[in-house]
Order: sequence, then C-alpha cells, then structure tokens
Amino acid sequence: MTKTNRRDFLKGSAAGAVAAVTSGLATAALAQEKKPDEPKKWDETVDVIVIGSGFAGLAAAIEAKKAGANVIVLEKMPTPGGNSIINGGILTATGCPQQKMHNIEDSKELLEKDILTAGNYMNSTKKVHQLVEQTLPNYEWTVKELGVEWLPDAIGQEGGHSVPRYVTTKCGSGAGIVTKELDKCKELGIPIRTRTYVDRIVRTPERVEGVIVQEGYKFPNKDSGKTKAIKADQGVILCYGGFSADLPYRMMQDPKLNAVLDTTNQPGATSELWRETSNIGCLQVQNDWIQCGPWGNPHEKGMGIGWQFNQTAAAEYGLWCNSDGDRFVNELANRKVRADAIMVQQANGKKCFAIADANGVKPFVAQRPGMLDKQLERGLVFKYDSLDDLAKAQGINPEELKKTVANFNECVKTKSDPTWNRYINNEQVPVETAPFYVGELQPKVHHCMGGLVTDDNCQVLDVKNDKPITGLYAAGESTGHVHGAVRLGSVAILDCLVFGRMAGQKAAAAPKAS
Amino acid sequence: MTKTNRRDFLKGSAAGAVAAVTSGLATAALAQEKKPDEPKKWDETVDVIVIGSGFAGLAAAIEAKKAGANVIVLEKMPTPGGNSIINGGILTATGCPQQKMHNIEDSKELLEKDILTAGNYMNSTKKVHQLVEQTLPNYEWTVKELGVEWLPDAIGQEGGHSVPRYVTTKCGSGAGIVTKELDKCKELGIPIRTRTYVDRIVRTPERVEGVIVQEGYKFPNKDSGKTKAIKADQGVILCYGGFSADLPYRMMQDPKLNAVLDTTNQPGATSELWRETSNIGCLQVQNDWIQCGPWGNPHEKGMGIGWQFNQTAAAEYGLWCNSDGDRFVNELANRKVRADAIMVQQANGKKCFAIADANGVKPFVAQRPGMLDKQLERGLVFKYDSLDDLAKAQGINPEELKKTVANFNECVKTKSDPTWNRYINNEQVPVETAPFYVGELQPKVHHCMGGLVTDDNCQVLDVKNDKPITGLYAAGESTGHVHGAVRLGSVAILDCLVFGRMAGQKAAAAPKAS
Repeated sequence: MTKTNRRDFLKGSAAGAVAAVTSGLATAALAQEKKPDEPKKWDETVDVIVIGSGFAGLAAAIEAKKAGANVIVLEKMPTPGGNSIINGGILTATGCPQQKMHNIEDSKELLEKDILTAGNYMNSTKKVHQLVEQTLPNYEWTVKELGVEWLPDAIGQEGGHSVPRYVTTKCGSGAGIVTKELDKCKELGIPIRTRTYVDRIVRTPERVEGVIVQEGYKFPNKDSGKTKAIKADQGVILCYGGFSADLPYRMMQDPKLNAVLDTTNQPGATSELWRETSNIGCLQVQNDWIQCGPWGNPHEKGMGIGWQFNQTAAAEYGLWCNSDGDRFVNELANRKVRADAIMVQQANGKKCFAIADANGVKPFVAQRPGMLDKQLERGLVFKYDSLDDLAKAQGINPEELKKTVANFNECVKTKSDPTWNRYINNEQVPVETAPFYVGELQPKVHHCMGGLVTDDNCQVLDVKNDKPITGLYAAGESTGHVHGAVRLGSVAILDCLVFGRMAGQKAAAAPKAS
Repeated sequence: MTKTNRRDFLKGSAAGAVAAVTSGLATAALAQEKKPDEPKKWDETVDVIVIGSGFAGLAAAIEAKKAGANVIVLEKMPTPGGNSIINGGILTATGCPQQKMHNIEDSKELLEKDILTAGNYMNSTKKVHQLVEQTLPNYEWTVKELGVEWLPDAIGQEGGHSVPRYVTTKCGSGAGIVTKELDKCKELGIPIRTRTYVDRIVRTPERVEGVIVQEGYKFPNKDSGKTKAIKADQGVILCYGGFSADLPYRMMQDPKLNAVLDTTNQPGATSELWRETSNIGCLQVQNDWIQCGPWGNPHEKGMGIGWQFNQTAAAEYGLWCNSDGDRFVNELANRKVRADAIMVQQANGKKCFAIADANGVKPFVAQRPGMLDKQLERGLVFKYDSLDDLAKAQGINPEELKKTVANFNECVKTKSDPTWNRYINNEQVPVETAPFYVGELQPKVHHCMGGLVTDDNCQVLDVKNDKPITGLYAAGESTGHVHGAVRLGSVAILDCLVFGRMAGQKAAAAPKAS
C-alpha cells in the first residue's frame, strides 16, 4: 500500500487510526499515524479558549465574543494582564493626531521599512505589511472601542524608528490599555479565569480539540490545582507571551543570556507553553532572537521606572555616554544595537549613563508629572548644578564629558550627527541648561522575537508540512516572523492588538467541531 | 490525584498509559500521557541504527561496531556520503605536524576562543571545550585508524581563525575521508543501506524504539519504496545533516535566504527529519542561523570548484575587491561577515572579485595540481598579464585597483592591515608578479549552525524538560550549540568526526531495550 493510499484509507475509516490491520509492514506504518488523543470526558465545552490575558489575549477574546462566540480567557497567574500590564505603554501610531500636531512627516511605507531593517529582513514581509496597514485603524480602535486615554500632545521616538511616532498612555504604562480591555471583557461577559494553568493542549490528527488545565494553580508549583479538561468547539488562541524570565530555556536558546542579566518581565514569563506547542508539532522559528531593553536601570529590579528617564528624557532629548565621557552609540539606534554597545562598554570595564538637562527633561516631566521626583527620590536619577559636578560624582571623566556635550550641541544646531548618525528631533535644543540629570544604563532581557509561525489568518502551522492546524490560533509575543531579528520599541502593543483581534475574529468564524 | 502521583502510578503499571480509569478529571489528564507508539510487529531488529552516511554517521557506525554492536546505516540517496563527499576536505588540526613545519604557534585555547568569538557566544562552552580537546587526537585518528591521506606540508587558514591551522585531503575534497570511512565500514561488515528513507522515528513514553522506513525510495518521491519497521535495541543515531537545499524550510527560518541564492549542498540536504524530530518532541535551537559560503563562484552551479581559487589562493595569499577596485572586507573574517559584506556590495550594484598573482597561486597549485588549469578552462578563473588588463576585462576601475593593490602590498611588507585588520600570513609576499588571476565571488547557502540539542553523551534532549531521550543520539550538522552563530571553516569535519564517534560509542554502551 503506498502512503497516499494508506492516508486515503484512514480518512475514509472512522476507526482508521486504531484499526487493527494485522499484516506486517502496513501495520507498522499504521501504528505510526497519530492517534486520537482526546480525553474520555470533557468537563466543559466552550467555543473559544484564549490562553493568556495580556494585550493580545484580551483583544482576541473581545473580538471573538463580539462575533458571537462563547469565550473564556485562561491566565495562570493570580492577576490578569501578564507582562502587558507592566509594559511601557507606548504604541506606534503612524498618522495619529499627535504626529500631525508636531508636524512630523511619516508614512506606512517608512514604518514598514524601519521594521524590516531592524528585523534584518528575517521578518515575514506579508505579516509586516498586514501590521502596517492596521496601524492607524488600531490606534483609532483603542480610542473609540476601548476608550484608552493617550497623552493628547506627546509624540515619542523609540530607537530604530526614522521619526517620532509613538503615543503614550496617560497612566504611563500598559495598564492604561489592559484595564480598558478588562472593562470591555466585563461588559461583554467574558470570564477571565486566573490561577488556571494550561498543562496540555489536546491535539488529535484532525485538529486541536481543547486543553487540560490545573484550576486553582499556585505559580510556580506545577503540582498545585485541580485537573480539568475544557473543549474548544471553534478554536484555542495562544497568547501566552514570551519566556524572558525563564533562565534555563532562555540560556538554551542563547547561552550568554545568563543569570547575570536581570529581566524586565514578570516572573510568569516562562516557557511551559513554548515547550508544549513544540511538543505537539507546532512550527516555531527564531526563538534565539531575544531582545534586551538597553534603557534599564541597574539600581532597581525588573522593568522598574528608571528606564523612563533613560529613554524618554535622555535618549530622545539628551545623550548617552560612557565613564570616559564619550558617546558610544546612536542613542536612537534599535534596541539590540544599543544593548550590545552597552555590554561591550561594560566588558571593557566602563559604565554607561543617560544624561539630560533642564530643557531635555521638560517633555518627560509634562508627560509624567511627579515621575522625575520619584526617580530622584529612589536614587535612580541624580541631579547636579553643572556637568562638572555630575561627572565627578558619577565617576565620569569631566573634561571629556564637557567636550562630548559641546560636540553634541553642535550636532543639535546643525541637525547633523556625522559620527553616530543620530536623528535630531525637531524640538531638541542644546544640552546646556542646569540642572543636569543622569541615570545609569543596564540592559535587561525584555522581549522574545521568535515563536509560533502563523498563516494570514493567525492559524498556527504544523512543523511537519507548514499547513495550518485546525482549531489553533496565535498572536502576540508567542508568535514569530513579525519582528524578525529585532523588535522596534512601541511596536509590541501594535503587534499584540492587531493580530490578537484578528485571531479572535478568525476563531469565532471557524465551523464548530461538534 | 496530583500530577506526581499520577506519574508514579503510570510508571508502576505496565498498561498504565492506556489504563481505563473512568473518573472524569483524572481520565482527561491520563489520556494526555503519550501512548506507546510502537508498531504491532518489527520487521527487523538491530542494536544501533545510524541515519545518514556522511562524516558523522559513518564515524558513529564504525565506533558502535567496534564496541560490539550490530549496526546498520540508512541513507535516503542512491549513493552514500551525503554532503560530506562533496565537502572541501579541510580539517582544523591544531598541533598537527604541518603546523609545526610552518612554525605556526597555536593552542587549544586560541582555537576555543576563535570558535566562541565567531559563534557570538551562542555556543555551548562545554561542547566547544569537548571539541577542542579532541582536535589533535581526531587528526591522528583519521591518519592511523582510517588511513586518510593529508597533504603533508600544506597548512591553510579559513576565515575567523587567528592562525593557519587546517590540513587538506590529498584528493582535495571530503571524499578523501568518506571513502576511507566506507572502506572501514566494509572491513567491519557494516551495511550501508542506500535508498532508505526514514519516514518516522518511533518514540514511546519510555524511549525511542526504532524507525519506519521506505526501502527502495527514489528521491524525492515520498510515495516510493516499501514500508518497513526496524527496531533499535540500543539506539538510533541521527546524523542526517543540514537543510540548505530545502527552500521552503530555509525561508521559514530566514525569509531572505530565497531562491535567488544557490546552495553548495547536494539536493538531498532537505528538512524532513528536522521536521520529524521536532514533531516527536526533540529540542532544537538556533535553526535560523544558516551560513552562506562567501567564496562561491556565480558561473557554476552548487559547490563546484571555483571556491578553491577564491579561498585558498586569493583569500589566503591575495586580496578581494569590488568593481570600484576597493577592498571591502577582511578576506580572513568569518564566513558570515564576508558573505554579508559581499551581499551589501551586490545590493549596491557592485560585483566582488578574488585576485591573486603568480606568487599567490603557488601554494594552491602545489596543493592541487591541475586545478587552476581546470578553473581557467571552465571560465571560473581568468588570467591576465597586468592588473590593468585584468581590471578592464572584468569591469573593475583600473586606477583604483592599482592603488588598492599598492596599499595592500604595504600591509604585507609591514605585516599590518590598519583598515581591515587582516592577518598577514608568514609566507605572504606582495601581489606584483604577472600573471594576475581573478575569480568572481557569490555567496551560496552552505551550512546550518542550529539543530538538535544533545547532552555530554550526545543524547538528544526532550523539549518538554531538557532531559535526554533514552535511545536517541545525534551528531554533526543535524545538531546545534557547537558553532553558535557562525561556524568557522574547517571545523565542520572536526565536529562531525568527534561527536559522531562519541555518539557511536555511547549508543553501543547503552543497555539493550529487549
């Protein structure tokens, strides 16, 4: 029997996969066909199961519910929001009113080019195109559908972007979006089940059928909770995020990302479902591309708050230097370039600093009232009357620093930075007005670029044949191919919301299994 | 029942995995445990099955057989040798007599550092250390055990190595090793079964049991051949090589490695077993690190012969330039740096060339009698009486080329290359003696750095828990973590032979399953 015939035969036979054919060779091959793996009894059946309650998961749930599906959201941690709720809350919004207010010329094409360039063209060009097309509609959705409050006149520029194009939530973090998504879920009657750990994803030869969970799970104890089998009649949507907080898995992908490096991520950013989806034959790519946020502060744990001065004030309106007093990188290069540059300085025994003056902190202070004071209070940022004092107190070479700042101010005046080729913001003025502020820089493991490969409908592909697995969808940090080698800052929320929503819509439109 | 208890229960029960426990939740969870997947009947049983007949597979088979195991080698193509038999035949041999003859100072430590540096420290430091410790013993093994004939006085330097340290087979390709391995297999009575395609690897909850193959397979027709189930009582050793010739899988890993790029690999370098091992839950990492050989020649298909002039003559004793007549890269940088540099030149509309003079080709002509003539005959290398003639005929700026060569000759004289920081060979002389030779450069997809993760005993790890899978071993290009981001030239054969041998020894020492 040829393989094709065998497969046709199986297809035609209800009990095909367990059929007791007794002749030697054919039997051997037959037994290799995947057997139905469903539980004897499902404890509960819904239309759509969403795994993860961050930006992507909640967006997926909202769309699926609005399309008429019976949806539940599963979250292993005791509170919803995952990593999104402690995220920086900045969103790429090319074409938004804030950009127009500041007379910034931008286009979808320029955004697309920036994403592919940072991604080292390891992105799927199709996915990037889908994303870019939805950038402005996505911003509008957050305002009109969710009621997210964005700072009305602030527009920022993360590294690797050609122009300023991010908006910031009023509350200054991703919580400004997640809480609105949670409100919408409540309004729509979508249950968010916390402490619900997904142990297995049930895949049969035909489709993904559902999940086996531990209810009442206490992170990180895998023996906690009560086992339950939940069937998904239309689809399971994987929005389980990244693994930056999972040291063994992270070091397996890139052995140099060891315990010396802190992470910005919450402790639940672990690899169990990366392992499980791989184990059930889902295609994953580029898991070894793991991004460090260059703007972390060494004097606090995790994401913290120090990064906001280092990026929003100093990288965008000031400068970065090492303890020799020299600039060492384009402060607006992509995160990998900047994080690598800092690590090279550190390997050479030098510390790295972010510096801004009284004018440089103004946009930041206006956006985040009280934040700079809090950073000063916590010893994350320091304030001095002169560059001399700043340099001496921080162990920076004072003469060299003054020379560096003078050179930088020339760049600002001429709007040209021949050495580092840094973009000079329209609104940037020379760094010369006391007081002077400084924060230290320390890269922290931040974002996983790789992950599940999905098709144009957010359906996860099978590693055996690159075909979509029926009943399985994914979006957000658990997926790959959107960002390629390096994700640009402020594109994560865009990615999560656009593809999260799409996954929800597609799953809700799928035919029911039973 | 807690999960731990459940697992203990299963372990204690012969029929555990299929036990009919009927209470709801426990049943649901139970059904998720992997079920025994073995065929109803094995058609054949051996001790050790080796998949792949390249350097690694044959080395594994030889060692397993010598340790007393009953071994077979499976090869899907009609002839044995895989990609190894068309490989360049150069082997890193730090400490070998040829190095001493040329007064080259080298050490295991320096080799280790070079491998980790090129690997961007994405290597497993443990694996690299194991490899480096075996470098000289491995060279000696090829001579004493296999009788490989190496050029007795030639020592070469591939990119990224700090000093010349490779030896070359007399026949000028990997065939000089593979044929000796095949002779040894014959002597030991190891069957090499060609046209045997491995369709499935049978994995039960306890171990890998064996494989399902198609005998009489006609590449690439997956429906060809007759199905057969072969049991491996001690182990299956995976030496199935890379996937450089598999366009869809290669583009899935790195979308820019598209059809425009030729490959040096034979057509059988495809992804089926990369997909199958992933599907049965083997841990794979860094599959997106795929190396282009920078020294390929665009005027022939595949690996060809033009690379030998471009590397051995021009990179080691001449220089590389673009059509402007300028050098554009350290000719002895690692392969990725050089391939990327050429692709950047090409993206800017420039061609790239490798140039050597009458003195520069001497070592190459001595090593490969007749080869230069063959390259000239086939239009892969061209010969001119002057640099002027060469430049004009090839569309290179003549004045700039002459300036560039004069500058390069200064580097040779001073043994220092301030612009590109290239190593200047002890034996290099200025490029000034007619005739002058030139070949064009074209990167071709060459080697997969990533792959299966193995432990210190070459046992493949499970993606679910990073633990070794009983009965499953791997070595060679199918494995990851040895080379990290970039494999250095001439380290592939070392990797394949050292870990291939180790895998064979370990599998033969494993307890028998039945």
